Amino acid sequence: MDAAEFRRRGKEMVDLIADYLENIEQRPVYPDVEPGYLRSLIPEEAPEEPDTYEDVVKDIERVIMPGVTHWHSPYFYAYFPTANSFPAMLADMLSGAIGCIGFSWAASPACTELETVMMDWLGKMLKLPEDFIAGTHGQGGGVIQGTASEATLVALLAARSRAVRMILASDPQRPETGITSKLVAYSSDQAHCSVERAGMIAGVRMKKIPTEQSDKYAVQGETLRRMIQEDKAAGLIPFYFCATLGTTPSCAFDHITELGPICNAEKIWMHIDAAYAGSSFICPEFRPLLNGIEFADSFNFNPHKWLLVNFDCSTMCSVCSTNPNPLIPLCLTLSPPLPQTTSQHWQIPLGRRFRSLKMWFVFRMYGLKGLQDYIRKHVELAKEFESLVRADQRFEISADVVLGLVCFRLKGSNEVNETLLKRINNGRKIHLVPCQLSGQFVLRFAVCARTTESRHIREAWRLITQLAEEEFPCCLISCEVKG
Amino acid sequence: MDAAEFRRRGKEMVDLIADYLENIEQRPVYPDVEPGYLRSLIPEEAPEEPDTYEDVVKDIERVIMPGVTHWHSPYFYAYFPTANSFPAMLADMLSGAIGCIGFSWAASPACTELETVMMDWLGKMLKLPEDFIAGTHGQGGGVIQGTASEATLVALLAARSRAVRMILASDPQRPETGITSKLVAYSSDQAHCSVERAGMIAGVRMKKIPTEQSDKYAVQGETLRRMIQEDKAAGLIPFYFCATLGTTPSCAFDHITELGPICNAEKIWMHIDAAYAGSSFICPEFRPLLNGIEFADSFNFNPHKWLLVNFDCSTMCSVCSTNPNPLIPLCLTLSPPLPQTTSQHWQIPLGRRFRSLKMWFVFRMYGLKGLQDYIRKHVELAKEFESLVRADQRFEISADVVLGLVCFRLKGSNEVNETLLKRINNGRKIHLVPCQLSGQFVLRFAVCARTTESRHIREAWRLITQLAEEEFPCCLISCEVKG
Repeated sequence: MDAAEFRRRGKEMVDLIADYLENIEQRPVYPDVEPGYLRSLIPEEAPEEPDTYEDVVKDIERVIMPGVTHWHSPYFYAYFPTANSFPAMLADMLSGAIGCIGFSWAASPACTELETVMMDWLGKMLKLPEDFIAGTHGQGGGVIQGTASEATLVALLAARSRAVRMILASDPQRPETGITSKLVAYSSDQAHCSVERAGMIAGVRMKKIPTEQSDKYAVQGETLRRMIQEDKAAGLIPFYFCATLGTTPSCAFDHITELGPICNAEKIWMHIDAAYAGSSFICPEFRPLLNGIEFADSFNFNPHKWLLVNFDCSTMCSVCSTNPNPLIPLCLTLSPPLPQTTSQHWQIPLGRRFRSLKMWFVFRMYGLKGLQDYIRKHVELAKEFESLVRADQRFEISADVVLGLVCFRLKGSNEVNETLLKRINNGRKIHLVPCQLSGQFVLRFAVCARTTESRHIREAWRLITQLAEEEFPCCLISCEVKG
Repeated sequence: MDAAEFRRRGKEMVDLIADYLENIEQRPVYPDVEPGYLRSLIPEEAPEEPDTYEDVVKDIERVIMPGVTHWHSPYFYAYFPTANSFPAMLADMLSGAIGCIGFSWAASPACTELETVMMDWLGKMLKLPEDFIAGTHGQGGGVIQGTASEATLVALLAARSRAVRMILASDPQRPETGITSKLVAYSSDQAHCSVERAGMIAGVRMKKIPTEQSDKYAVQGETLRRMIQEDKAAGLIPFYFCATLGTTPSCAFDHITELGPICNAEKIWMHIDAAYAGSSFICPEFRPLLNGIEFADSFNFNPHKWLLVNFDCSTMCSVCSTNPNPLIPLCLTLSPPLPQTTSQHWQIPLGRRFRSLKMWFVFRMYGLKGLQDYIRKHVELAKEFESLVRADQRFEISADVVLGLVCFRLKGSNEVNETLLKRINNGRKIHLVPCQLSGQFVLRFAVCARTTESRHIREAWRLITQLAEEEFPCCLISCEVKG
């Protein structure tokens, strides 16, 4: 395929994409296929001679679409959102064409530099402390990671390195392996599994801090303090705490204004994972949830979740005010010495796409106000769903609705709720996933798609109540009587 | 921007991309900017109100292009290639629109399944042993990673886990940290820095195996065997060897037919990193370079380098014939229990794009023969460049030219060669990077762009010799006299 044919096929693809997204709500949101469905639909080997492009395009509907979970359908309410906007897609097309690999400044200066400035734009949108803005002191700043999992790991590695160096400074004879075997990291028992995974990868102990429903699933300062004291008494070295703002199960918020000073006093690196909730902090009314950021060493959230920048774009800022920079140990340069920006090495992979183009297009085409409106609309839709649930005494709300996630359940057994969820997802009209909260099986309703409107929310609720009535007419009557 | 406007803007972007790639050789391949150039060209903050799309597009030429290193110019000979083909770009557009996050089978079955089948197609193109093909035994198979760095790390983590489990099986009382502190991994001193970095991340000792020019920079079985014996005698536990097929400095090949049996006998996990060279193994004449793969536990290369699949697409296969699967310790599932394929968890990030669409489009639109032709053409162009160098007695070839990389230098001091390279890159007409081989400063000439032709190679050589004559007329005369 040459450039002339690409002009033709590219324009057809633009129309195919627009058609797909304009008509997405006609499709069943969740696919009706069994594991292994695809293998039998295509040849066992690549063709020797080229296929025609027409055949490839035909196979999109025949092979791919039947197995797609449509994350951008307004009837998709599972997990958390993943972003999808037209400006981001246009920027991504350009990024693919430029196709530079930004592992160093020289490998494509625009790639490194636009990223640094876009991280500053974002930092200012979030009103981060100046320490986190590269353009001010130049010590801190941000980079784009692929995912929050990588950011959590990079922060943990930096914290490990800083802890080892601090201990060696006061006790140079101590063997390094003897230090790492005593290190202990902490996170909430509500934290994402990638936090535990980061500990496994780095080979350090990771302890889960228990939370309670009565505390809204937030880590309590008193609990953290007690665990630290107990671990220190047992000869361990606390060095890292991953706070979560907006947990995956229920969108709970750790109180970082209380936890931050404890970490600072104990020289524990505090990383903040706000993967989903972080985007909302561009709105003044949600920014207080980030108060306490001034105690953090690093902070991460995913514009690719809720800020209209297509995956992957997970933004990580660090103050790096310590000198030498604790992230430096990850900075092994390539053999040919080239001008480097250290920030490019705050990451696990070395190669990287020109991802900041997506932020640039989206921030400019929406403007801060447009982005704020978008966040607010999703929160309003969640509140609307919450009202519907609260108005129906057969159901209950299982956790505070702060942003775009509603955790709810039928008043009844876990089994009843599991069955209801199975019915909902088997219907393929809407899609939800569950979580466990204090031993209860809970349904998560997350407002996800860019095109979700009030009518979709009401239709989803109509379906949920209809299925509940069909499945449990007796149970529901007894609930109503009890209510 | 709504779908209707996207139809218009998307088509304009397709033309912009086609224009960019059709006219790329008119641009200086290496940018003429100083670090920090971009910040002054754009506002310090995101706009409150949206900018117009026209303004955004105008800024591509004003802000971005002056700072781009044009990796797809036929005058780009630096690093190794990064792929860029029209079918891959079309597939990537589709992937962006579907925008699913494939962290589990249920999150989008087509995403998981097409990946598994495309990895099988690739495995068959490479004639991998059946253990590496999912469709045959179902134990092994492959996944797409973001980069080779991640594959190296994942293999190392799996090896670490297997080693610990094997030792605990025979000595259950031994503390785990006491084991990891004794583990030792190996790689060539020619290996990519990401291998050393993987050791640092995983917190294990990583030793570099010295190589010699006389051995063509390949790791010798005798050297590996001796290091293993010495380390075992010192109480260490050898557990991982990363072999390289096609090193970054000179495209050297470790002899895995000799090294593999040593690793197998010592229960050392052998991972093969063939990031660049791997793509060539689809040609029968280069496939012998992969002989010995049957001794490996895992194997990785980057179709996003040389197989026309745009970044990111780094393919990793593992036999995983051991049971329990040593990669399993990385498999922490999300809270809601959903059908999972373990392969999705052979990676550091949890989220992932629908990357296999790119492989599918490229393999079908080129066909195996088209891909083989592409590889062969690049190798021929490298051989042509090698001939030009060999015909000029002022220059020398510094390492065997096996694939698309030519390492060469002026007969003379390192300083002379450094100056020459600086002149070449400052000219901005062609772009090369250097390497160090046995203490010598060497120029690397890698055939990179899809559109490179013989005329570009000859023009590059004309420029190099012209600059050498301008800079070192005396030196060159003396070289000629000596020659």
